[in-house]
Amino acid sequence: MIVKSQGIWLTLAQDSEGPRCGAAMNDLSEAKGQALAIQGDRIIDIRAAEEIFSLYESDQILDWGNCLVMPGLIDPHTHPVFLATREDEFEMRNLGKSYVEIALAGGGIRSSVRSLRSATEDQLTDLVKERADGFLALGTTTIEAKSGYGLSTADEIKSLRAIHKANAEHALDFHPTFLGAHEIPDEYRDNREAYIQLLIDEMIPAVAKENLARFCDVFCEEHVFTVEESRRILAAAKNHGLQIRIHADEIESTGGAELAAEIGALSADHLGAISEQGIKDMRDAGVVATLLPGTSFFLNLAKRAPGRKIIDSGVAMALATDYNPGSCHTQSLFMIMTIACIHYGITAAEALTAVTVNAAHTLGLAHDRGQLKVGMRSDLIGIDAPNARFLPYQFGSNPVRHVVKDGRVVS
Amino acid sequence: MIVKSQGIWLTLAQDSEGPRCGAAMNDLSEAKGQALAIQGDRIIDIRAAEEIFSLYESDQILDWGNCLVMPGLIDPHTHPVFLATREDEFEMRNLGKSYVEIALAGGGIRSSVRSLRSATEDQLTDLVKERADGFLALGTTTIEAKSGYGLSTADEIKSLRAIHKANAEHALDFHPTFLGAHEIPDEYRDNREAYIQLLIDEMIPAVAKENLARFCDVFCEEHVFTVEESRRILAAAKNHGLQIRIHADEIESTGGAELAAEIGALSADHLGAISEQGIKDMRDAGVVATLLPGTSFFLNLAKRAPGRKIIDSGVAMALATDYNPGSCHTQSLFMIMTIACIHYGITAAEALTAVTVNAAHTLGLAHDRGQLKVGMRSDLIGIDAPNARFLPYQFGSNPVRHVVKDGRVVS
Repeated sequence: MIVKSQGIWLTLAQDSEGPRCGAAMNDLSEAKGQALAIQGDRIIDIRAAEEIFSLYESDQILDWGNCLVMPGLIDPHTHPVFLATREDEFEMRNLGKSYVEIALAGGGIRSSVRSLRSATEDQLTDLVKERADGFLALGTTTIEAKSGYGLSTADEIKSLRAIHKANAEHALDFHPTFLGAHEIPDEYRDNREAYIQLLIDEMIPAVAKENLARFCDVFCEEHVFTVEESRRILAAAKNHGLQIRIHADEIESTGGAELAAEIGALSADHLGAISEQGIKDMRDAGVVATLLPGTSFFLNLAKRAPGRKIIDSGVAMALATDYNPGSCHTQSLFMIMTIACIHYGITAAEALTAVTVNAAHTLGLAHDRGQLKVGMRSDLIGIDAPNARFLPYQFGSNPVRHVVKDGRVVS
Repeated sequence: MIVKSQGIWLTLAQDSEGPRCGAAMNDLSEAKGQALAIQGDRIIDIRAAEEIFSLYESDQILDWGNCLVMPGLIDPHTHPVFLATREDEFEMRNLGKSYVEIALAGGGIRSSVRSLRSATEDQLTDLVKERADGFLALGTTTIEAKSGYGLSTADEIKSLRAIHKANAEHALDFHPTFLGAHEIPDEYRDNREAYIQLLIDEMIPAVAKENLARFCDVFCEEHVFTVEESRRILAAAKNHGLQIRIHADEIESTGGAELAAEIGALSADHLGAISEQGIKDMRDAGVVATLLPGTSFFLNLAKRAPGRKIIDSGVAMALATDYNPGSCHTQSLFMIMTIACIHYGITAAEALTAVTVNAAHTLGLAHDRGQLKVGMRSDLIGIDAPNARFLPYQFGSNPVRHVVKDGRVVS
């Protein structure tokens, strides 16, 4: 396959060992009049269109007109395995109820747990595949996908299996995360220690044994899991070969970022209330800060993650949707880029780096995707936009016109 | 034509003389299993599907599956006639420059004036038609469309003619507004009185004579036009048979809302800094408050219009995109509904009323559109959503699957 476009090509191809941080996040590689040759699921060449056409022959030539071409987006934090949407809660919250009030009244994560437990694995698989269509249409070709609405061994395994089935049957790539430590389930409210033991002694070993997850995540937050509890759970996960991500310091600063650094997490996520020490520790340990600006927007939180400061401090930033039925119901990384630019005071180039190269790093996939360059996976998208700055500037509509995943046209 | 859907039908059909205010904004008419018969550009019947099929025959039957069906959206505040987009300014602002700083540095509205003056009427017409495609695809079937980047008699007339040509050649309905009083152009910076005289003595009469606008609008704001200047301009417009809308109290409270009430405006728009007196006066005079939550979002303003309070005070609210290249670059009223629900603390039903029935009132079109009912214009849309509350809850993607305008399938 050959893809050509008269528009801007964002190859994002600067070489660098680790995730991009500081000024390197602003360093976009732009070119015009390029074409790209694909063989199977790999990019085999990218250069001026006339050279590509003199070097390669193909009976599948895609002319993307004036589209801007860039690597398929990577969403490094999603919760796509749920049964029921929660639009009623959205309205309650807008009318004045707080997230915590709704949670204490039996809403929030716990309401998703009740509904997920009633669902079959096939039902969940079908829903996840439907949602995968949504991600692909919006230009996202790879997602991290968490369990976490099961909160029992059987229901967490059911959730992770649904992700695996969807991954096998759908073009979108899923990278599964075990998030049994998303909340204390109702039946353990009076005995949280027993649930933590269940996580450590039964759930993590079972998930690891079946190879159901690449990552383990914990919701480390006031009223959820303490730093000490999170440390124990994540240490067990590491012992079973899982890599670590953490929901850290979303609302209150409890030391989640520091824990992420200490334990060698790939990513610490949210960080609405990250401390100075947390920023320093993450920088020194090379943990990526995955920020979720859609969530603070959707929850109408005055306190937002200090995105500008995080970049300026030398911490690599990724951006994600946090797609979930309660606190952020969007699948669009373009929308997330817009909110990030406005709320964090960052540039389009920084936002683009955050949803490609740096997002790939948090998934341990930077060698394989997140850039348009020879040897990388042939995941690319064509966008109706004249330049990179236009991407976050235009909002509320879907600018994606073409999606190629693993060398196949999928949208 | 017959349209059917198994999904929810939002007919918004409560009868009422004026725009909906207070509790009536929450009063959605919902039904299921309906169908609708269309003849030409009119809805001739709407009732249970089996009854429609027994009463009417048609060789054009549209089955919209489980889509939610509602009237085409009405956007009562847009600035679609411009040449160049301003994504560089968006980035500058996000990096810390204020809207006023950018304006004083020659950016802002004045940069759009420079570029528009260099454009031909045909160029502008083509751009407006392209943008009309965007509105229709996002479910908007009627827009109010302002001039205001010309700021000379010839360039304002060129802008309004571009709107008329686009209206004649495109399915989208445009209702044009003369906004010569959008800013003082550079050549009159040292003699603002002369520009006001030009507006009153030459531009308004010329626009009225050619029937180029239904409405006249003024940007009544600190550093733009004072209340006294606005009053003189709008009085002249009224004398020439134009109806009145006002950009009022966007950033500072200068008495724009009070002026709107005094002068009998159809709508006062923005209102980020509306006073208590302004709310009271608008309620007593029956002026609709058209709020533009996308703009305060895009400009990252901490001060937002008091949307909840405006409704609770008995003022009818409409919502609009404010689509323009500087302060709000979105065409999606669904996105606007999401921001309104979150930032103003309003319900989905209130937001829906604001972009249909109440938006129609601000354009003097409530007898003709904004509801699905017999005799109304056959403008309707099919949305991928299970219920009304889902509409603002899902954000960042386009939920519109079908658009019928004047009885024709256009998207």
